[in-house]
Amino acid sequence: MRNIYINNMPLSEALDRWQKAVAELAFLAKRVDEVLVDDSLGRITSEPVFAAHSSPFYNAAAMDGIAVRFADTVGASESQPVFLSQEQYKEINTGNEILEGYDAVIMIEDVHQLQNGVEIISSANPWQHIRTIGEDIVATELILPEGHQIRPIDIGAMLATGVSTISVHAIPSVLVIPTGSDVVQPGEAIRPGNIIEFNSRILAGYLSEWGAKAERGQIVMDDPEAIKSALLKATASHDLVIINAGASAGSKDFTAQVLGEIGEIVVHGVNIKPGKPVILAIVQGKPVIGLPGYPVSAVLTMRLFVKELIFAALGKETEKTSQIEAILSRPLSSKMGVEDFVRVKLGRVGNNLMATPSGRGAGQVMSLVLADAILTVPAGSEGIGAEEKILVELLRPLSEVENTLVFIGSHDNILDVLANMLHLYRPVIRLSSAHVGSMGGIMAIRRGEAHIAGTHLIDEASGEYNVPFIKQYLGSLPLQLINLAYREQGLLVPKGNPKNIKGFEDLARDDVFFINRQRGAGTRILTDLNLKKLVIDPGKINGYEREEYTHMNIASAVASESADTGLAIRAAAIALGLDFIPVAQERYDIIVPASLRDDYRVTALFETIRNNNKFKQTVQNLGGYDLQSCGSVMYEQ
Amino acid sequence: MRNIYINNMPLSEALDRWQKAVAELAFLAKRVDEVLVDDSLGRITSEPVFAAHSSPFYNAAAMDGIAVRFADTVGASESQPVFLSQEQYKEINTGNEILEGYDAVIMIEDVHQLQNGVEIISSANPWQHIRTIGEDIVATELILPEGHQIRPIDIGAMLATGVSTISVHAIPSVLVIPTGSDVVQPGEAIRPGNIIEFNSRILAGYLSEWGAKAERGQIVMDDPEAIKSALLKATASHDLVIINAGASAGSKDFTAQVLGEIGEIVVHGVNIKPGKPVILAIVQGKPVIGLPGYPVSAVLTMRLFVKELIFAALGKETEKTSQIEAILSRPLSSKMGVEDFVRVKLGRVGNNLMATPSGRGAGQVMSLVLADAILTVPAGSEGIGAEEKILVELLRPLSEVENTLVFIGSHDNILDVLANMLHLYRPVIRLSSAHVGSMGGIMAIRRGEAHIAGTHLIDEASGEYNVPFIKQYLGSLPLQLINLAYREQGLLVPKGNPKNIKGFEDLARDDVFFINRQRGAGTRILTDLNLKKLVIDPGKINGYEREEYTHMNIASAVASESADTGLAIRAAAIALGLDFIPVAQERYDIIVPASLRDDYRVTALFETIRNNNKFKQTVQNLGGYDLQSCGSVMYEQ
Repeated sequence: MRNIYINNMPLSEALDRWQKAVAELAFLAKRVDEVLVDDSLGRITSEPVFAAHSSPFYNAAAMDGIAVRFADTVGASESQPVFLSQEQYKEINTGNEILEGYDAVIMIEDVHQLQNGVEIISSANPWQHIRTIGEDIVATELILPEGHQIRPIDIGAMLATGVSTISVHAIPSVLVIPTGSDVVQPGEAIRPGNIIEFNSRILAGYLSEWGAKAERGQIVMDDPEAIKSALLKATASHDLVIINAGASAGSKDFTAQVLGEIGEIVVHGVNIKPGKPVILAIVQGKPVIGLPGYPVSAVLTMRLFVKELIFAALGKETEKTSQIEAILSRPLSSKMGVEDFVRVKLGRVGNNLMATPSGRGAGQVMSLVLADAILTVPAGSEGIGAEEKILVELLRPLSEVENTLVFIGSHDNILDVLANMLHLYRPVIRLSSAHVGSMGGIMAIRRGEAHIAGTHLIDEASGEYNVPFIKQYLGSLPLQLINLAYREQGLLVPKGNPKNIKGFEDLARDDVFFINRQRGAGTRILTDLNLKKLVIDPGKINGYEREEYTHMNIASAVASESADTGLAIRAAAIALGLDFIPVAQERYDIIVPASLRDDYRVTALFETIRNNNKFKQTVQNLGGYDLQSCGSVMYEQ
Repeated sequence: MRNIYINNMPLSEALDRWQKAVAELAFLAKRVDEVLVDDSLGRITSEPVFAAHSSPFYNAAAMDGIAVRFADTVGASESQPVFLSQEQYKEINTGNEILEGYDAVIMIEDVHQLQNGVEIISSANPWQHIRTIGEDIVATELILPEGHQIRPIDIGAMLATGVSTISVHAIPSVLVIPTGSDVVQPGEAIRPGNIIEFNSRILAGYLSEWGAKAERGQIVMDDPEAIKSALLKATASHDLVIINAGASAGSKDFTAQVLGEIGEIVVHGVNIKPGKPVILAIVQGKPVIGLPGYPVSAVLTMRLFVKELIFAALGKETEKTSQIEAILSRPLSSKMGVEDFVRVKLGRVGNNLMATPSGRGAGQVMSLVLADAILTVPAGSEGIGAEEKILVELLRPLSEVENTLVFIGSHDNILDVLANMLHLYRPVIRLSSAHVGSMGGIMAIRRGEAHIAGTHLIDEASGEYNVPFIKQYLGSLPLQLINLAYREQGLLVPKGNPKNIKGFEDLARDDVFFINRQRGAGTRILTDLNLKKLVIDPGKINGYEREEYTHMNIASAVASESADTGLAIRAAAIALGLDFIPVAQERYDIIVPASLRDDYRVTALFETIRNNNKFKQTVQNLGGYDLQSCGSVMYEQ
């Protein structure tokens, strides 16, 4: 039995129904804790806090010096000092009480000690250098309003005015229940078909960051009775329950069925992507949210339907999400009728904030690790054109985005090393790289979408690398071409080369399955050049149409035996323990527009490339690289 | 013995010496912890993190449906469905392994179940709806660079790729030692001269927020041997030690003397205000910072000299402090030769971010509670003129500042109630009020420094409130004048009225000490009007020249018997339990420029004033208010 009949409710309607359903729950009744001010850092006041006594609560010396009667000092000057006898003044330190009869303080620096008294050379004003009672705050005055998140200085202000316990909003407790018979804990032995249980860690992490007390439950098997029992227990002990997953339409997805039995399903299925099969329910007066199994879906739907509940319980208004204008670097298609949440990377190039999708698969955790913002494509749109202005919701502070160096172009394993070394050398700078092939990099520079681009394009006619393409596509742009490395390209085959592949001539064999790179990649052009030389018809090659975007994905396909061979760099073969049949040594260069040569991010990158020995050593260890020209300017225009 | 010879070193030199002195310490050697990824939220990587295995680590179904051989599906269409027998497909759920022999997945929605098999109406592409090995990330690829602060999604990415323990920077431990024989713990009985020990709480709070493990020590008496023993113990057990205070030049300030004996003093005395007497020392290879006793001085000097050490130990680059341009609303004088750190409140009025000092006393904790930013006045400046452009360092997110409603003008106790109710009604909106008197409020509106102003100015000639002054000073500005309340003004006297004061006529008595409000305050004008009517010479009144800025400070002076009487509102008398001799009922109105009538902050304020019964009830409870016209428009131009 599959229950494939999930609704496709518009997001606004789903949010509306959910808000109405939870509005009356005890969960939102804003329970209150009495806490010691000493334990209140980060908590949110549930009542205004008023000063219990004044601060200072006595008239206090504001300086080290002597307390005097100001009337005794009248007329004192450098030429006519006034002498005060020991009966006329009292030595005091900062914070000492001003006893009755004194009404001014003279700083020690202005006091001249004599045998039987002191001499002063200027008169004192009434009440000078005295902190009068209530100077800072008077008893009964407001220190903090209700709904204020307590900072260190607030703790000081409360203790200074005699407040030692306060009322704060109670912290809502949330249980995250992972489900699935194939789910295993991290670190346990895994076999194909197993799902590593990391979703509950991600979800509990965000819940903690939002201010909830988040716990993770045991993994519950795909069994309706087990799920029912877990949910009943959880709703009895916690304010809110997240169950993940089983929300979808697979033959083992029982969450909706169980929730329908023991509670009320408010929403099942929303027209959003990712996240469509989300379930919003009420069980025993507690909100229960069934999140989809894909990690990205789970995170995004939790932001939509849970974050506000946590904030409401804590008495915080949901942060206005930080929207900012950006420009889409490539066209983006979207399914009409679905509200599409697209993860994007951002980079400031010139005056524009350029947005590039960081991956769209709901299972791609890295797409969210790398994302700087979320772009919402409305349900009524079929997509967004390149260079269109869009509003995105920031996931990182804008300052981090501004410090990002945007690299677009050909993939190379050195980029990982560089990202790390650069971040280490200048922690505020991040390298964001999008792997769209050498031609994609050149075009990104042309359109002003990237700071720098990586390219290794061989010109068929001249055999020269990169320069002919730059002249053709970037002819009028002043720039430098700087070498990153020479590197070996070759055919990757499993250890021991079981199919005995010797070169491109073997690709046309019936028993050989090839895996290719995408159009526009330098490696694809190298493949096609070799096939042309050998007069091999690409149509005869099994798998010629199957494309991957990086050297490592080629290596992965060969290592997992879903292909017999593919063209990639030696470092990828070494990384995954494959054999390598050399085909060519090629030059991999970086294009730097002249306008960005002195940009601090670009400068930091080239300082790392040129001067960091650990960088060079690490690259050498990857294998297959020649760094003789690394950092040298190969061409300038 | 006093040691008043503290240096006056320029800040840049002090920072330079301190950086050099700490650069070589073990403290900065960046110790590393191995932690479980499950426990790593918020920690900072000390090594890059690479994928231990690929994700996914097997070819996995991306959809619920059936696994097929794509070759079997060629030619399927709505008009010519293809039948697949049970041997030709396998039912699968999302996440299941794609077994050998299958190379595509068809979604369950596109599958028509028949008796002995299924029918499909479109052909499958090779590898469709399959997440291939390494689609998200391939083994050995970089997940996180070194120096990265771990977020929930990062935990997911690490666990998904088989990483379960990582190296992170160890957390530096800091001990904060409070000193002082007069210092008492919060909640203990206090007598004049006692200092409540709240500084260590503030300091430890900030240290925690910066990422350190901060502990608070016992209070140490003003005794050199006790201080020495505490410091030796602390430097043996902790990475960094803060001692507070005893850094200054009072006769009981032993910190510098002791630090000189047991370690090396790098700096003692910096030309900054507040914070001058700070001591920077090294004891047993550990940094020891002697912070001044005033809380504001302690906080600001700790930001200058400690924050960077914590960040360095954690492997974080110090956040670039967020500088922003603002306009100073009033001239600010500063002592030449001292780098002056001025706390300011900020508010967006029109296009300008207006900055107003929030109080300058180093003992005023509330000045820091209320501050939005810090303005640095360089040592070479004598001050800054009004309306000058300045750069300030934000202490709150700019969004909070943007949501602040800026009130300038006359003080009234209702403003506390309003601040709280407004924050409660719309948590993102804060009310920032500066009490500079009614005339100050009118001038602030004229100069575009405030959104709204509070005023209760009586015109001597007509007896009319506020309108004559508005016509004179704001004649050309379209605005509304909205009533907040009628309120009673009167002379405050101690309970029982020991000096038998009956009215203004008693102020000229020799045995009566008065306390006055500042020039420009409506209450001051009311005083002067009454004295004029009674033909009393202000020069004959004891204390006429002693000025306070709020009703509550007048009440406080009377309650603490530093004055016998002063003019203030009834609510202030009630708050501090004083007797009240009524003098006048007056009208307190709020000026709202027409351009701001629909501003969301202003709207929220007047919704609160007009419609919130709890607001009205709370104001009635303060005493002395008549709310018959509260919220009514009294005048419009």
